Amino acid sequence: MIASSADTFTALPNGSSTSARGFRAGALPAGIKASGRPDLGIWASDAPCVAVATFTQNAFPAAPVVLSRERLNAQPHAQAVVFNAGNANACNGQRGLEDAREMARLAAEQLGIQPELVLVAETGIIGVPLPMELVRANLPRVQLKPEGGHEAAQAIMTTDTRIKEAAVALEIGGREVRIGAMTKGVGMIYPNMATMLAFIGTDAALDPSFAKTALKRVVDRTFNMITVDGDTSTNDSCFLFANGLSGTATLTQDSPDAERFVNALEVVCTDLARKMAADGEGATKLLQVDVTGAATDADARKAARSVVGSSLVKAALFGEDPNWGRVFAALGNSGAEVDNTRAALWIGSLQIARDGVGTGVSKDDARAQMHGSEVSMRVDLGLGSASARAWGCDLTEAYVVENSAYST
Amino acid sequence: MIASSADTFTALPNGSSTSARGFRAGALPAGIKASGRPDLGIWASDAPCVAVATFTQNAFPAAPVVLSRERLNAQPHAQAVVFNAGNANACNGQRGLEDAREMARLAAEQLGIQPELVLVAETGIIGVPLPMELVRANLPRVQLKPEGGHEAAQAIMTTDTRIKEAAVALEIGGREVRIGAMTKGVGMIYPNMATMLAFIGTDAALDPSFAKTALKRVVDRTFNMITVDGDTSTNDSCFLFANGLSGTATLTQDSPDAERFVNALEVVCTDLARKMAADGEGATKLLQVDVTGAATDADARKAARSVVGSSLVKAALFGEDPNWGRVFAALGNSGAEVDNTRAALWIGSLQIARDGVGTGVSKDDARAQMHGSEVSMRVDLGLGSASARAWGCDLTEAYVVENSAYST
Repeated sequence: MIASSADTFTALPNGSSTSARGFRAGALPAGIKASGRPDLGIWASDAPCVAVATFTQNAFPAAPVVLSRERLNAQPHAQAVVFNAGNANACNGQRGLEDAREMARLAAEQLGIQPELVLVAETGIIGVPLPMELVRANLPRVQLKPEGGHEAAQAIMTTDTRIKEAAVALEIGGREVRIGAMTKGVGMIYPNMATMLAFIGTDAALDPSFAKTALKRVVDRTFNMITVDGDTSTNDSCFLFANGLSGTATLTQDSPDAERFVNALEVVCTDLARKMAADGEGATKLLQVDVTGAATDADARKAARSVVGSSLVKAALFGEDPNWGRVFAALGNSGAEVDNTRAALWIGSLQIARDGVGTGVSKDDARAQMHGSEVSMRVDLGLGSASARAWGCDLTEAYVVENSAYST
Repeated sequence: MIASSADTFTALPNGSSTSARGFRAGALPAGIKASGRPDLGIWASDAPCVAVATFTQNAFPAAPVVLSRERLNAQPHAQAVVFNAGNANACNGQRGLEDAREMARLAAEQLGIQPELVLVAETGIIGVPLPMELVRANLPRVQLKPEGGHEAAQAIMTTDTRIKEAAVALEIGGREVRIGAMTKGVGMIYPNMATMLAFIGTDAALDPSFAKTALKRVVDRTFNMITVDGDTSTNDSCFLFANGLSGTATLTQDSPDAERFVNALEVVCTDLARKMAADGEGATKLLQVDVTGAATDADARKAARSVVGSSLVKAALFGEDPNWGRVFAALGNSGAEVDNTRAALWIGSLQIARDGVGTGVSKDDARAQMHGSEVSMRVDLGLGSASARAWGCDLTEAYVVENSAYST
């Protein structure tokens, strides 16, 4: 749930990636996914947008990433993203790039815009050529609608069990501005950039350099702070499109409302990040870890990510086993500055360790803090004033079952 | 199995950590492990040894690591290691250090040697004080025997399903030199130093600085190249003791036989590293990954470790699913220099990808290469001449089951 604060912004119930003015989307089942579910679609704005993105840092980026990055490097403008699930179009060599380019051209023809304004996002199996005949036959049948966000959120799913959408409205200069977004997870999720596909559309008018800074800052605090399995995908892309149709003046870094816009963007992305972690492959529990008292921001981030990423912490979470030594082992491995005479740990509201040593609480009391679908931990490193928050999930037998037979 | 080469060294059948002359060990069940199995023991040499070690890089090192490191920093000499399983004596603050020191003193009294010559190794649950009354009551009953290596190997086990020992003999200067070793895994295993407990005893005479260099070089190529779950323990310690009782001249870096000794040491540690990976928690398959054609040694190591460490590769291995895109994704995440137009992949003897693109072999043919308890992969990065080898195991439901209820 979005924790809304009425005087700054409003959560939009049933919000989606087309909640902002002038955004439309559509999708249909093209047969790329074996399941017969929707898997091909277009997300577009009626007007050209200032467009920025963050992409995977995997050294083998997929063809859609290579193409989209190239286009946004040439100009911070775009108007649509054509996307598919079921095939990542990664490790397909020159042919993969040609296929991605053709997808963009077909979508551009359909929308009546320049191909250079179309970006591409794909997710699914790696190393299998994209079935272009299915794309060519089905893309022209995709119908874009202002209420099409939910359809699109369905069509980007792979092993996701739930669609992931969020939207907020805020007032800027007397006008209502909206931010709507969708994302998908949920395997190969590791923070080293936007670790998934995310589409964020706003009708605010954004200066390109402000848009870039805002997206980077928010992604670093949200999508880059979740971990499912420590693997970074070849296809991760997070797009922010701003079409200005709210009629507000262009926001720059120096605008009085810049901070409020960034906060609203963070609320949307936090909501989606939590939904992604909670829907991690096979997950039954969301884990939220706060690190306080770190010497530096970087240390706080490393420490929080190390705890949510530890296989042993994740397995203990599944079993509701308050084996807190695993949390300390993860902190000790994080690369953050730590001091084993100062660190403290809480599970839920119960203090488990103080000055690096167990407080002697009963195992049953500690275990009681691990019931339920959301578990929180707090670590205070006792070294400074920096803090960070990260999200993860438990490691379950279902994760193994799901991933031992994914492509078959 | 040790791949012996008769003209350089001989594998000793039924070898153990007491195979070299003058080494003795003993262990018994002291009740520290709930299972009632042997869990407390001493491994010692009849004569003082040149002693070197590598320790965990976890920033929360356990008390036995702090104490042993301190002692070896003061002098590269030791004569015994007192050890227990069932309790790691980590995150126990000042009390933990005092307990470790007392353990060493008790063992020294029993052996009639200086306490400073006794090191400590412990493994098990973190954050629970060591039950010293059990140590005090039982340590004096430990009987050391030249054939006690197997007993000791039993007593250092935690979730290990098999004992792990190896020994070789080689000729140096007309005399037979032996190297005997034992190790334990098998959770919290990740290469960032000796990632487990390992005890290596040789009757060669080693110059301390040569011993240090030799151990570091071999650990980097063996124990540091295995991954079970990406977690680095607080207790990892790898000891090399050399008592010189073979009567050979002291080996230094410049001795003609130095290289042969290091090779023999590497054979012993490779054998143990493979046994540890194969016995990874819940594992059903050993994975051996060779990376060739890397630009640098560091790149080759990173790439090989990234592949064996990927949760998705490991889960695919369990399912015998030749989903090779996951291998490429792991390479792309490794931090090594890679080029997606040059990388090639073999699973077993079958080439799966060439120039970064699938070769189109049938899934059934590829799957057939993944049957059996040992699976090999080779990656050629096509960028240089550096190579590295790493070992891992599959990720199975049993890993999750085992780790979701370890402390309870």
